[in-house]
Amino acid sequence: MLKYQQIANEIEQYINEQQLKQGDKLPVLEQMMNQYAVSKSTITKALELLERKGVIFQLRGSGIFVRRHNRPGYMSLFSTQGFKSNLGDRVLTSDVIDVSVMKPDALVAENLGIGVSDDVYRVERVRYVDGEVLCHEESYYVKAIVPYLNREIVADSIFDYVQSALGVTIGFSDMYLQVDRLTEGEAGHLGLQENDPTLRIETIFHLTNGKPFDYSRITYHYAHSQFVIQANGPYM
Amino acid sequence: MLKYQQIANEIEQYINEQQLKQGDKLPVLEQMMNQYAVSKSTITKALELLERKGVIFQLRGSGIFVRRHNRPGYMSLFSTQGFKSNLGDRVLTSDVIDVSVMKPDALVAENLGIGVSDDVYRVERVRYVDGEVLCHEESYYVKAIVPYLNREIVADSIFDYVQSALGVTIGFSDMYLQVDRLTEGEAGHLGLQENDPTLRIETIFHLTNGKPFDYSRITYHYAHSQFVIQANGPYM
Repeated sequence: MLKYQQIANEIEQYINEQQLKQGDKLPVLEQMMNQYAVSKSTITKALELLERKGVIFQLRGSGIFVRRHNRPGYMSLFSTQGFKSNLGDRVLTSDVIDVSVMKPDALVAENLGIGVSDDVYRVERVRYVDGEVLCHEESYYVKAIVPYLNREIVADSIFDYVQSALGVTIGFSDMYLQVDRLTEGEAGHLGLQENDPTLRIETIFHLTNGKPFDYSRITYHYAHSQFVIQANGPYM
Repeated sequence: MLKYQQIANEIEQYINEQQLKQGDKLPVLEQMMNQYAVSKSTITKALELLERKGVIFQLRGSGIFVRRHNRPGYMSLFSTQGFKSNLGDRVLTSDVIDVSVMKPDALVAENLGIGVSDDVYRVERVRYVDGEVLCHEESYYVKAIVPYLNREIVADSIFDYVQSALGVTIGFSDMYLQVDRLTEGEAGHLGLQENDPTLRIETIFHLTNGKPFDYSRITYHYAHSQFVIQANGPYM
């Protein structure tokens, strides 16, 4: 983790610990430089990162202010998508159904930009927030990039592991959202009925060099999935 | 519109016109400075904006590359939310059901941070993409910030109007997403059946100074709403 990312985390932690509200003002730049003992450029980069994440907003000439949505029970959509983001006091756990090496079908290969004879890890999990079913997830990892996974790793955060243990740097993702009805098999995983509504999200995660390495299909439990996105413009 | 925003738009237009694909390389910084006849800092800010919007990614030491999801039929979620974003060749139109000044109920007042005796504009529309029903929308605007709206304005882009005619600067938004079943009334607007699945999005739009000015509730037609979000990290 780079210095400015670490400082951004510390500022975010400070906001959470102090339970600051939307519109609350943060210390001025100079004070933060002293407090964290870093240069102006490090603080500036940390604040830019927090602005992109929707944690703060900056108002030229007035200061730096906290952004915090105020609806309990709503999770950040991105926090359930491998993004580093605040789940608050809520605990995310997983039941691991499958971890295996296989050849991808044509659709998976296409989404990962590989051939059908290349190896992938297939991971299937049911995920829970505070013990309630959140979603069913099926993910495919390019084995040439993620050479090893096991049940212990995938029961926890896969992205934590690939970044810290493998040194893989994750860049960006394309997320495809669609509302649909559950199939019988999906309903079984989620404890719901066939044809109940669901949010499906397919995501292709890329390395910083633009190479896809993870293609994931998630089916969310409609009654336990209330999401917030803290977005920035531009608008028109 | 600031110079760097204008340059960002021109670069985005170039990418669309040239039909560049994900991974295609853009000209180097120096060439773009010449081409658009602007300073390095303007180009840099334009590229940062495009990176935040998910239009490009930058790889230190290698160059600037195009990001473009490759699934036809998926709209940017943000483009239907008043964000300036590419709808491609698709045309967004509206049936205006209501434009009126009223007093907000307690829920609307709370979301807008105003009192129940303050005036709001209520706007109700059904929105179409290429003639197909996209969503039903109910929006409330703080009249102290948006003093005038009429049917002609709301049939087009309200955000365009408030920014260009009123000089209002829109800062950021909190979007709340939830999958649910349609009520009978909603189903009528969308040409669907009661209990059909739907994506509901409530959004609170804020000015750059953090003041809420628009609270909107949208109910999407599940069969005509396939969305893409081009997201950036950090991940963990």
